[in-house]
Amino acid sequence: MTSSHRPAVEAGFPVGQLPTGPRNSITDVPGVRVGHCTLDQGEIQTGVTVILPPPANPFLEKMTAAVHVVNGFGKSTGLMQLEELGTLETPIALTNTLSVGRVADALIGYMLDLCRRDDFPLVSVNPVVCECNDGFLNRIEDRTVGEAELLAAIANAGPDFAQGAVGAGRGMVCHGLKGGIGSSSRVISLDGQRFTLGVLALTNHGRLRDLQLPGIPDAGQLLAEDPRPDPPDKGSCILILATDLPVDARQLKRILRRCPLGLARLGSFYGHGSGELALGFTTADPLPQKSSRQLLWRRCIHENRMDLPFRAAAEASEEAILNALLAAEPVTGRAGREKPTLSQLLPRLNAR
Amino acid sequence: MTSSHRPAVEAGFPVGQLPTGPRNSITDVPGVRVGHCTLDQGEIQTGVTVILPPPANPFLEKMTAAVHVVNGFGKSTGLMQLEELGTLETPIALTNTLSVGRVADALIGYMLDLCRRDDFPLVSVNPVVCECNDGFLNRIEDRTVGEAELLAAIANAGPDFAQGAVGAGRGMVCHGLKGGIGSSSRVISLDGQRFTLGVLALTNHGRLRDLQLPGIPDAGQLLAEDPRPDPPDKGSCILILATDLPVDARQLKRILRRCPLGLARLGSFYGHGSGELALGFTTADPLPQKSSRQLLWRRCIHENRMDLPFRAAAEASEEAILNALLAAEPVTGRAGREKPTLSQLLPRLNAR
Amino acid sequence: MTSSHRPAVEAGFPVGQLPTGPRNSITDVPGVRVGHCTLDQGEIQTGVTVILPPPANPFLEKMTAAVHVVNGFGKSTGLMQLEELGTLETPIALTNTLSVGRVADALIGYMLDLCRRDDFPLVSVNPVVCECNDGFLNRIEDRTVGEAELLAAIANAGPDFAQGAVGAGRGMVCHGLKGGIGSSSRVISLDGQRFTLGVLALTNHGRLRDLQLPGIPDAGQLLAEDPRPDPPDKGSCILILATDLPVDARQLKRILRRCPLGLARLGSFYGHGSGELALGFTTADPLPQKSSRQLLWRRCIHENRMDLPFRAAAEASEEAILNALLAAEPVTGRAGREKPTLSQLLPRLNAR
Amino acid sequence: MTSSHRPAVEAGFPVGQLPTGPRNSITDVPGVRVGHCTLDQGEIQTGVTVILPPPANPFLEKMTAAVHVVNGFGKSTGLMQLEELGTLETPIALTNTLSVGRVADALIGYMLDLCRRDDFPLVSVNPVVCECNDGFLNRIEDRTVGEAELLAAIANAGPDFAQGAVGAGRGMVCHGLKGGIGSSSRVISLDGQRFTLGVLALTNHGRLRDLQLPGIPDAGQLLAEDPRPDPPDKGSCILILATDLPVDARQLKRILRRCPLGLARLGSFYGHGSGELALGFTTADPLPQKSSRQLLWRRCIHENRMDLPFRAAAEASEEAILNALLAAEPVTGRAGREKPTLSQLLPRLNAR
Repeated sequence: MTSSHRPAVEAGFPVGQLPTGPRNSITDVPGVRVGHCTLDQGEIQTGVTVILPPPANPFLEKMTAAVHVVNGFGKSTGLMQLEELGTLETPIALTNTLSVGRVADALIGYMLDLCRRDDFPLVSVNPVVCECNDGFLNRIEDRTVGEAELLAAIANAGPDFAQGAVGAGRGMVCHGLKGGIGSSSRVISLDGQRFTLGVLALTNHGRLRDLQLPGIPDAGQLLAEDPRPDPPDKGSCILILATDLPVDARQLKRILRRCPLGLARLGSFYGHGSGELALGFTTADPLPQKSSRQLLWRRCIHENRMDLPFRAAAEASEEAILNALLAAEPVTGRAGREKPTLSQLLPRLNAR
Repeated sequence: MTSSHRPAVEAGFPVGQLPTGPRNSITDVPGVRVGHCTLDQGEIQTGVTVILPPPANPFLEKMTAAVHVVNGFGKSTGLMQLEELGTLETPIALTNTLSVGRVADALIGYMLDLCRRDDFPLVSVNPVVCECNDGFLNRIEDRTVGEAELLAAIANAGPDFAQGAVGAGRGMVCHGLKGGIGSSSRVISLDGQRFTLGVLALTNHGRLRDLQLPGIPDAGQLLAEDPRPDPPDKGSCILILATDLPVDARQLKRILRRCPLGLARLGSFYGHGSGELALGFTTADPLPQKSSRQLLWRRCIHENRMDLPFRAAAEASEEAILNALLAAEPVTGRAGREKPTLSQLLPRLNAR
Repeated sequence: MTSSHRPAVEAGFPVGQLPTGPRNSITDVPGVRVGHCTLDQGEIQTGVTVILPPPANPFLEKMTAAVHVVNGFGKSTGLMQLEELGTLETPIALTNTLSVGRVADALIGYMLDLCRRDDFPLVSVNPVVCECNDGFLNRIEDRTVGEAELLAAIANAGPDFAQGAVGAGRGMVCHGLKGGIGSSSRVISLDGQRFTLGVLALTNHGRLRDLQLPGIPDAGQLLAEDPRPDPPDKGSCILILATDLPVDARQLKRILRRCPLGLARLGSFYGHGSGELALGFTTADPLPQKSSRQLLWRRCIHENRMDLPFRAAAEASEEAILNALLAAEPVTGRAGREKPTLSQLLPRLNAR
Repeated sequence: MTSSHRPAVEAGFPVGQLPTGPRNSITDVPGVRVGHCTLDQGEIQTGVTVILPPPANPFLEKMTAAVHVVNGFGKSTGLMQLEELGTLETPIALTNTLSVGRVADALIGYMLDLCRRDDFPLVSVNPVVCECNDGFLNRIEDRTVGEAELLAAIANAGPDFAQGAVGAGRGMVCHGLKGGIGSSSRVISLDGQRFTLGVLALTNHGRLRDLQLPGIPDAGQLLAEDPRPDPPDKGSCILILATDLPVDARQLKRILRRCPLGLARLGSFYGHGSGELALGFTTADPLPQKSSRQLLWRRCIHENRMDLPFRAAAEASEEAILNALLAAEPVTGRAGREKPTLSQLLPRLNAR
């Protein structure tokens, strides 16, 4: 874990040209909170991370949302409705592949309780759960993440949160190094107002020899010691984007299409076995579920001005992935396995 | 051609429950105009039909637009950008399959002239041209529709226009009968305001034996006289929807997904060889090309209220297709070929 | 429940022109089995239905699969990977909306056990669970369907299975009448070989006044007694297609696009609140997970011959939906609610 | 223009790990030919480039094809049918934005002639034309590319072809430098057989300050001399991929999704105004139009082996774009405008 504002910059890897928000994190978007529950018990090295949008009850104030699937070889759930209606109606949960069913069920339970509290008779809700596969370090088939873990992560959520091998990132592996959770943000200005785009990355993708770092396109080759070829990429990368920029779902999807640029620049080939998607929401102008109005006024960005949010999304995604690598701490898991961390190996790169 | 307000109803085929606009036509949407240029010269039986949105220069006032492709076996052009940006920036032209290139080029020329007139330096424009294949009645390989024909159709455009075997519909064949151009509209009310959804159909699809009419599911079987099986469906059906309802592109696409219901209910199987698409635009809140504003306010319908426009789109599409069949007049074309019209055969159905 | 081979035909509603298989059911596709677990306990009126493809372990012999989403307002899971890879690697489960998480988790557990038995170290699997909302007749928020119910349905599976208010169909409502499970099949011939396309429908969609029956386009109007407008459509319809026809995933998706024709012809408007999708698989040439071959030979249908499977899919879908309506028996559920069955009301239609 | 086999490597910018084909070009795929027609007449600096697949008549031997649209802000035509049917039935033409209609029409004419020669009565054909906007250096509104130019390019086509400011690339601008045509290839081995993936890039995208070169992430910043901000990206990049690897259309689309990695790594943000797409075909197992067979046997790659073609597509795309930049020669065009070439500026980078 790191407390630095810009660990990537301090490590000598500057990313992009736009300014960051005060925390350089997805929680720079006003009202957005992140929470983890981490399971660190011998061969169980896993967890759950939640991204909570600002509305106290997101079913009653639905946020405009979209998803861009890069490689659909993954088990995330809730995407079909999110695409059709262009809205998000639950918090977003991230966890390991085989726990998606249990976490989705727990998220349904959480929403039923929330709506009971708010006297809204909920009979249908679309839980959004994304995943990566931590089966190398975690005994994933035990499906250890469920209701208790989800509720703990929600209870822990706030604007400040740990990065690295925490929450859903606990058992993840990225470019042959320890992966996990990272975040970054960018601030842009339109019509004199400031807006923030923040990205949270769950990184579990890539081969070591493919790793590229800013200015060191052969970083992975330099770090590889094992003469055998890298194992195939069987990971995933999930990029969650939050913003307060007013956009409609189509515009948001266009912005999300720029998130994978961060993956590409760090050397990913979007490997066959590596599911990759970017999912985002805006906190601007949520849709009131109980409105009696049949027509609504909503803001959006003029289409001709999209270059700025495009750039912000790409920059924040790349830096979030780098931050996950830099923040990750060593983890020993299943069968005593471990992966080195980028921080441990950096001196070797600097000694070139 | 017919001058009746509701030829389908008069023929005994009522469609749907919602009221129609005054013309029962796509031009009930305020400002929308339609024009034809018809080529009726021996083996050349073809033409072009244009749908003109209200802005004097649609490049400077782009309308929100979307497309739903049912069967992409077709050669319509301009769809990729329309989907990406959610806007229409030219009139829509309909013509025969092999003339699409020439009509697209002519539409570019028309827009260059329009922008020169408006002192706007146009260097890029996305012409939208849709097509069906009239090669049974028309010597299509002559590619006889081009700049002169497009400009004539635009010059002719107005709120009143002929239906049947006119314009792009001149040589079309639908369910083994003479096809062509038909239109219909529906009026709905939201927050106390009235909105219109109108559909223009170019019908060139289906086999005779598959034709279903409201209340006569075996209409095609009853009409078939030739003991040989129907030839394969190699046609197409283009459905153009216009509305003044405020919707974003995603919502409009959802509405367009209901247009093919009209095809289905009249017996189409969306045959392999029959390209089918629905393309639509709204005249509400066009996007100002030259605005200095970076953020815009725009109206949209509350998502929970979509059932009414869904129903309107399905009803207007079904009736537009029926109207095309009922309005079509006999045409003798290529190699002396002809197809019967539904109006000619109706007595036989009524005599059952 | 019904034991007739063609209840729709016997009720006076013939559908289509192609011959059916011996059972007129999805299980006419060799090797396909269907099983139910029905919960009939006062206010709990729900269940789970499974469609089992032929391979003993579908993860090791993946079937080509595809999905066509008509209205994505639904919570089905597993679609993203199915679309990306074009394969199905688990049985398909159908259940109520709020039990999807539990059933998905149970399906993961089932596959883990199956692969343990087969000595295959499973660490990732994509459970496919589709759903409709039975909250009118069932206390859906109790989430009563889980592991025991899924395993019971699998244990019950066979080529003969009940239709109507059983399994996932127990609490469903369709066009204001009792809905549920229905099935139908069609047989086609290519290059001298016979192939079967079968559809299983879970019907929970539509308003009463919109119901159309073959030859009675105003059937719903005739049956409506309550002078108040119908409640909004908040249902869903799931259409599962199985075949032994050799097709690739793109071709299969084209076939699935014709399934909703069955919905349309019976009067559905694909209502906003009614999620609709068609999901299918072929048993031809499954993909061997453990092959050492890097290139494979596979059969597919010549693209120019697609009209026959298109027609078969549309016909079987329409008849499957009709069969669900005709087979449904009365159910009294939540708060003593019930819905009439089509069989009960048929005499009224016949008395016109 | 350059005659070197690997100009990017010689310039100090190695790309990737896989071996290239003998020409390091798209024409390393057996039977694929490329031809240009270049217009170099004062303010007219434009042209057309054709990629000819091996079949003498591609309508009679259709190649499996797919397209991946990165940013649909473009006017390419023919994509809808190509996606629906998964086949290419004409040569591919590249030209400037406003000449697409004329070139599409010319391509229809070419195919009509070809089919007349082969005694095939063609009445419908889907011309594929892709475009970028060369309006900075070329008087694009003159629409100077048409039938004569297309036929000249086809007549010129062969396995050896010029790269740089030729054909459709004549007036293109990339990252503020002279852009144009570049190509590269990679060779992979499966089941003991060798297969080639080749990419041809038409480069017209990006801002100067965003340019990244392998090992020089701030290359664009180093080269920028004008203190004013770069103009907005209003370009495009078209990536055409050819291969002889047996794949179905879904697999080919997955491969094409990796082509834009080459754009990303060289600094593109997929700018709003910059349409980007990758379109590809395989020469393996073309679909015989006139076959009497209703079922076909076809090869495809085992899905688990996709990493190798993914990597090849990304590497070849990146190197093809670099080659376009390195091969481009100076062009003076419209209003005396010109752009520097990367080759001219390389000494400045090397002198750092």
